[in-house]
Amino acid sequence: MTIKTDVIVVGAGLSGLYAAHLLQQQGKTVSLLEARARVGGRLDNHQFNNGDLVDVGGQWIGPGHDGMYALLKKFALDFYPLYDKGQHLLWLGKKARRYSGTIPTLNPWALLQLGWLMWRFDMLARSIDVKAPWSHTKAKQWDSITVESWLKKNSFSKQARELFRISIGAVFAVECSEISLLHALNYAQSSQNLDYLISVGGGAQQDRIHGGSAGLCQKLAHSIGDSLHLNRKVSAINWHANSVTVSSEGHEYEAEKIIVAMPPNQLLRVNFTPALPGVKDQLWQHMPAGSCIKCVAQYEKPFWREQGLSGQAVSLQGDLPVRVTFDNTESGKTAGLLMGFIEGDHARHWGTKSEAQRKAAVLKSFATFFGEQALSPIDYVDKDWAGEEFSRGCYGANPTPGTWTSLGHHLRTPVGPIHFAGTETAEHFTGYMEGALNAAQRCVNELS
Amino acid sequence: MTIKTDVIVVGAGLSGLYAAHLLQQQGKTVSLLEARARVGGRLDNHQFNNGDLVDVGGQWIGPGHDGMYALLKKFALDFYPLYDKGQHLLWLGKKARRYSGTIPTLNPWALLQLGWLMWRFDMLARSIDVKAPWSHTKAKQWDSITVESWLKKNSFSKQARELFRISIGAVFAVECSEISLLHALNYAQSSQNLDYLISVGGGAQQDRIHGGSAGLCQKLAHSIGDSLHLNRKVSAINWHANSVTVSSEGHEYEAEKIIVAMPPNQLLRVNFTPALPGVKDQLWQHMPAGSCIKCVAQYEKPFWREQGLSGQAVSLQGDLPVRVTFDNTESGKTAGLLMGFIEGDHARHWGTKSEAQRKAAVLKSFATFFGEQALSPIDYVDKDWAGEEFSRGCYGANPTPGTWTSLGHHLRTPVGPIHFAGTETAEHFTGYMEGALNAAQRCVNELS
Repeated sequence: MTIKTDVIVVGAGLSGLYAAHLLQQQGKTVSLLEARARVGGRLDNHQFNNGDLVDVGGQWIGPGHDGMYALLKKFALDFYPLYDKGQHLLWLGKKARRYSGTIPTLNPWALLQLGWLMWRFDMLARSIDVKAPWSHTKAKQWDSITVESWLKKNSFSKQARELFRISIGAVFAVECSEISLLHALNYAQSSQNLDYLISVGGGAQQDRIHGGSAGLCQKLAHSIGDSLHLNRKVSAINWHANSVTVSSEGHEYEAEKIIVAMPPNQLLRVNFTPALPGVKDQLWQHMPAGSCIKCVAQYEKPFWREQGLSGQAVSLQGDLPVRVTFDNTESGKTAGLLMGFIEGDHARHWGTKSEAQRKAAVLKSFATFFGEQALSPIDYVDKDWAGEEFSRGCYGANPTPGTWTSLGHHLRTPVGPIHFAGTETAEHFTGYMEGALNAAQRCVNELS
Repeated sequence: MTIKTDVIVVGAGLSGLYAAHLLQQQGKTVSLLEARARVGGRLDNHQFNNGDLVDVGGQWIGPGHDGMYALLKKFALDFYPLYDKGQHLLWLGKKARRYSGTIPTLNPWALLQLGWLMWRFDMLARSIDVKAPWSHTKAKQWDSITVESWLKKNSFSKQARELFRISIGAVFAVECSEISLLHALNYAQSSQNLDYLISVGGGAQQDRIHGGSAGLCQKLAHSIGDSLHLNRKVSAINWHANSVTVSSEGHEYEAEKIIVAMPPNQLLRVNFTPALPGVKDQLWQHMPAGSCIKCVAQYEKPFWREQGLSGQAVSLQGDLPVRVTFDNTESGKTAGLLMGFIEGDHARHWGTKSEAQRKAAVLKSFATFFGEQALSPIDYVDKDWAGEEFSRGCYGANPTPGTWTSLGHHLRTPVGPIHFAGTETAEHFTGYMEGALNAAQRCVNELS
């Protein structure tokens, strides 16, 4: 029996959920199909043994994420600022330096260089039109060099370069060699600037959601009701000029329009009939997902706070897997959480290790920064998103060098009745939850 | 009913066909599964209205392709040298210059620069171990810069740079901005050197096969007999430590081992259970296929030969889609064939046009180089491989910048009973038909 609705939405991550929600508000009927047994996509909660929840996927919102704040209000969900008091740590291999703000204490030369790099980067980013980064007069040039090349050309301080690399790793979950200057600039411009992207208070890491970002997805799912169908992996989409049919796990769905809200690497795995134009497929082939393992250790209390530390550390020591940490403690809870990112090449390396090996190395990182107490957590979790079948990487997908100027203008163009959502297609705050909403809204506008 | 054999081979391109052929010679039973209704993969024949055949996929063999020459001999197939007499053309936008050899006539400064670039490139390539390009002491550095960056740094002649770019386009079917210096060097070293890659006599474009390379695939298919199963798209592979089962179009296959001989972008679309390690999937996400449209016009006779021309042209004029041409006339046939490549960004642009628009632009390119007669072919064909559902690009896949050093060492490693063939995994002559054989042989060795 075929289920007929006005629209089919594929993927119940935040973008798909929000698109379905908006469509229903317009009075349209929707089938929202999700491959997993859960909603949320790259947003997910883990429950510790003591019952506390923690985000193991995307978690942050900040100023300008107006859609997110409005949605939280609508569903009566509370948010709270990430713990940002006390001093941060810069681990230089043998000793730790304490600092405040986003720029660590370095020797004056390195500091000057880092400041210059950040300033120069944001100056370039400012001139980009996020609706069409390929149209910039220097687009071809900027798309043909890696961020690593730009960095080497513009900085002579090894420490400044290494800190800039860590910032890029923390923002994109890739190495500076993997993305073009144009992509990095466009991404920064899409979220105001690089300073915003790496900041806590006033920046992209400012606030977190009580109950986790997955909690918001569950609220959205609840609002969608019976129109949500879990365990419906979509492996085939048959489309015509004005209609579309989807087969999934023995069920059939039919609609006039379809919104696919999946990461590019997952879109590649869908069998479209007729086959999509070569440029769409080629574009997605050139948008690999980043590599990130998110690691969280739970302690009886946030012991680092007693030492006047914020829980935020940046490490320049290459053999520790964790380069960046945050105090991920949920406001109002007793237990303290340290969260560390393993990113880019480190993520690929540690993704091949056992969970026990990874846990030991992560705790060693934490202990190096915050002391021996970090070796004795009461619980621990990590999530390697590259191993997750329906994500295969995170945070988002990054067009490889040359791609924005060659294939980028096909990113948001519909094909027949097929429209493309997902945070990768967002103009504003691409890569963030706000971007997921932005993309969903655009698709819904396209349909009306 | 489940068909049980010793080995399953997925993909009846040259690599899969050869693997199955070798296994049968060892007395092993094989199921060779192919999604298409034909064998050959990225090798394919087109039949003109007059009955003549022409390669619309891979077609060339050259010195060192020992496996290919041996295979032709075994199946009593003849080969012949690509027409390489007369003078070549360099089209500079307003006028054509005639030249001989692989290095066109340029002003002395540009010529010196081009010579230096080629020499320098091959010097660097020579130091690479094709078994492990990631192990080179400069691997990280070379993998972090694009060929375009290297080119700009090493050449001040605009013409020399542009010719180098066209060479890279002709060899890789991508722009210089899309691949790292390390990938380009490794690829050249895998086939001797760059000079070999762009040469006709004594190089990678020396010889062609009577009846087309697809003819060789048909011979191989014939030798494999009933073990070949066409129209068997493999969308799911279930694997255990010592066995594997494959469902395809309602048929079931079981074996102890499996060789997958598919391009990386196609491997991404197979549903492996259990899911493959994150690093494999991430590697394939970082190996997009190149973009190439192969265009062939058929004329009553090879009229350019009468003008003392070889049919080989290189064009520096950006608005003509065709940058490189060859005389693709089959030895012994009356009709003359001009073949032109549309590559990289040009291929993506012209892939969105209608066949009629493309044909007009291609014939205009030919006429610009060889005169008005080129506007009146008796037949025409082009093939955009990005639009072909089971290839989605050609010639081969190219790891994006940063990938060789981050994920490259996972390229050839088996996972449980699963072994990986295809020209992309070849150590020698990767990207070529010889590479397809090389990879197949390696897999068969792994199994015994």
